[in-house]
Amino acid sequence: MTNKYEKKLATPSGFRDLLPDEARKREYIIEKVREVYSRFGFEPLETPVAEFEEIIVGEKAGDFNLFYLDSNKERQSDGEKESIALRFDLTVPLARVVSQYGNALPRPFKRYQVGYSFRGERPQKGRFRQFVQFDADVVGAKSIVADTEMISMITEVMKAIGVSQFVVRVNTRTLLNSLPQYIGFAENLLREVLVILDKSEKISKDEFVLELSRLRISEQAIKKLEEFSGIAGERGGVIESLKAFFGDYQDAMPGILELETIHEGLSSLGIQTEVVFDMKIIRGLGYYTGPVFETQSTRSS
Amino acid sequence: MTNKYEKKLATPSGFRDLLPDEARKREYIIEKVREVYSRFGFEPLETPVAEFEEIIVGEKAGDFNLFYLDSNKERQSDGEKESIALRFDLTVPLARVVSQYGNALPRPFKRYQVGYSFRGERPQKGRFRQFVQFDADVVGAKSIVADTEMISMITEVMKAIGVSQFVVRVNTRTLLNSLPQYIGFAENLLREVLVILDKSEKISKDEFVLELSRLRISEQAIKKLEEFSGIAGERGGVIESLKAFFGDYQDAMPGILELETIHEGLSSLGIQTEVVFDMKIIRGLGYYTGPVFETQSTRSS
Repeated sequence: MTNKYEKKLATPSGFRDLLPDEARKREYIIEKVREVYSRFGFEPLETPVAEFEEIIVGEKAGDFNLFYLDSNKERQSDGEKESIALRFDLTVPLARVVSQYGNALPRPFKRYQVGYSFRGERPQKGRFRQFVQFDADVVGAKSIVADTEMISMITEVMKAIGVSQFVVRVNTRTLLNSLPQYIGFAENLLREVLVILDKSEKISKDEFVLELSRLRISEQAIKKLEEFSGIAGERGGVIESLKAFFGDYQDAMPGILELETIHEGLSSLGIQTEVVFDMKIIRGLGYYTGPVFETQSTRSS
Repeated sequence: MTNKYEKKLATPSGFRDLLPDEARKREYIIEKVREVYSRFGFEPLETPVAEFEEIIVGEKAGDFNLFYLDSNKERQSDGEKESIALRFDLTVPLARVVSQYGNALPRPFKRYQVGYSFRGERPQKGRFRQFVQFDADVVGAKSIVADTEMISMITEVMKAIGVSQFVVRVNTRTLLNSLPQYIGFAENLLREVLVILDKSEKISKDEFVLELSRLRISEQAIKKLEEFSGIAGERGGVIESLKAFFGDYQDAMPGILELETIHEGLSSLGIQTEVVFDMKIIRGLGYYTGPVFETQSTRSS
């Protein structure tokens, strides 16, 4: 007997099943992370997987690979059709919740959310169109203490899920914003310079120099950027290097002060070598202003 | 200042947020139910929220209010467009998994799954287009012992989530299938008779009789159906009533035997008044064959 559905006995590409062995592992990790987030005072939030398109897209357009929801019933109905799409992250829904509920939420609003996000793109190898995100955010806290607490929480999360060899690499955008004037390149090139800084570990030194010179940045400035991108490692040492690098350039002081505050906070919590400062940590260019961080496993494979 | 997005600072209708107080309650309940399911040997399964349309719809057509996923990227691509939709339950994905992975799964395959399901319809008041389902199923167990275990597990779930006043009402389709011949109406009317039986608690006795007589069922048969639908309550008593009702009608024996087996199994587990037998319990007409059950809170409001 042939089965007419045979070729479709599968998940669509970019979607996958977790059979019990894998599902149990995911549950375990989610439970462990949830425990740490709760211990740090974060509260759960759930938002639907679908939002109005204009919430997701905002004033930008085009660059989103969204999955739109389309139901036959709505197509038939008279009223204006609402455009609804699956979220691509958990940050946009958080922003909507904060705007929508306003003062009904406590401040600071510390929330975590674990849930699926989606990409409406042809999946490349190893990429998924449905994937889990597990966000923790603090809304309405001005102090750098909130960032320090977040970094400290990350180290607890890694330990809780059994990753003992890891490093959290920290930088601050505040400091990066002072680069153009001090090093000597045009303000409007900062974005492109940061993109090159961001990938400096993945390209050779020659490519690094080549890409910067394509931006018509002076040889001397490139040398300075090379030096800056190499400042990384033990936190106290990085602070000393940054002070030496920037000398008495006043605009760099707020950024260095941020790192000093984070360093002291972490040290008072007994957090040492597992958190370093690294000038090559840039993160997404659209979102971030102050401290940025990234965590890596350091277990040699 | 006016905000051009103001009118859309909301979830689409039929979708909702759970702010921390509610989200915490949902997490608590999910955790408690998960514990009970695990204790009974059920293992977690995760499937994606989206499936191929032909998996969801099967050979039927039309009657599904699906949300189709539509991405701009796919619209532009050359290849054949795959039709993908959000699942409307967790049972169809389970059937796919069982077919797809076959012998790679243990038998019996006892799995639970907690996840969102979707309805692509204009939501009515109090109905959601995204909602959580929490299924436990046993695949590949022939014995009525599996059903007994399931009923026992339901009582544990209710206690675990703090609902102390509840009743599980049990029936079996095996018995219902013997009704047409014994009571005296056409086989092909069984489905419609069951629909009326199913809603007999929500309509008056006169309406019950009226709806049955519209099917051109004899007055005597209607009387019998009325009597049958009233058989409900303490399990041992129901079994006696059924034996009296069916007399020596042999085709009713398998159904009665199923109920006796369930009764004995539950009694040996110390489960008494919280599980009753009730001939008005019918459940969905498409899916079920053997035992069916339904749980209600009995707390007076």
